[in-house]
Amino acid sequence: MSNEGSDTWSPFDVVGHLIHGEETDWIPRAKLILEHGESRPFEPFDRFSMFETSRGKSLGDLLDRFEQLRRESLRELEGMNIRPEMLEKRGLHPELGVVTLGQLLSTWVVHDLGHIGQITRVMAKQYGEAVGAWQAYLRVLES
Amino acid sequence: MSNEGSDTWSPFDVVGHLIHGEETDWIPRAKLILEHGESRPFEPFDRFSMFETSRGKSLGDLLDRFEQLRRESLRELEGMNIRPEMLEKRGLHPELGVVTLGQLLSTWVVHDLGHIGQITRVMAKQYGEAVGAWQAYLRVLES
Repeated sequence: MSNEGSDTWSPFDVVGHLIHGEETDWIPRAKLILEHGESRPFEPFDRFSMFETSRGKSLGDLLDRFEQLRRESLRELEGMNIRPEMLEKRGLHPELGVVTLGQLLSTWVVHDLGHIGQITRVMAKQYGEAVGAWQAYLRVLES
Repeated sequence: MSNEGSDTWSPFDVVGHLIHGEETDWIPRAKLILEHGESRPFEPFDRFSMFETSRGKSLGDLLDRFEQLRRESLRELEGMNIRPEMLEKRGLHPELGVVTLGQLLSTWVVHDLGHIGQITRVMAKQYGEAVGAWQAYLRVLES
């Protein structure tokens, strides 16, 4: 099983999801906050688009694309010259309501760490049988 | 909090633990299996030595050391020229009893993936407050 059961994602799905985040979520929303504040709500994020857009691609293709997009995102972030007081700038999330630029950037970090953890769990579980008696020591296999 | 509560580890602790694994666990045990089979049990692994050996070092020091040791481990592993039938070779674990080389190598992979997941959880939780209303979407913060 390449995911953690029905309605869960494989590492391949996750990388497609991270690509979509670079394209439509983090930097576009940061720009919206800086340029329009609360006057324009964020576009809702599509959690399922990668099932379509990743089709026919290899994991290597997706990783290359993610690497390129992340590099561009970081360059754009740097170009925003965000000073501490700018982190309080407010935007409007379509479901959550008012959020700040600082919260958006923290969420970017936590979101991606969460998905890295998810990838490690799914990869680890591929070896659930292969570890033999060591299974008893490897809590990640029960997670 | 730099870990997940009492008797849990920080990323700094984990990297020290991974270093100790490279030094005393994976490759030394693989060699023991290939050279002595079940006739010589593995040395018990010390899960706490890094609290002493990492003292006074920076995370950067530990990462550099781990990178160097891992590179050496992979070179040694390659030098073992392990063919499929060799994965069945047996060794003696001091607690678990008879294990195979294949199980040891699988355990190495799962073990390290588990600790990467642990690091991502601890790092994510540093931002538990900072994400504001997004907390509701970020399951890693509850893990």
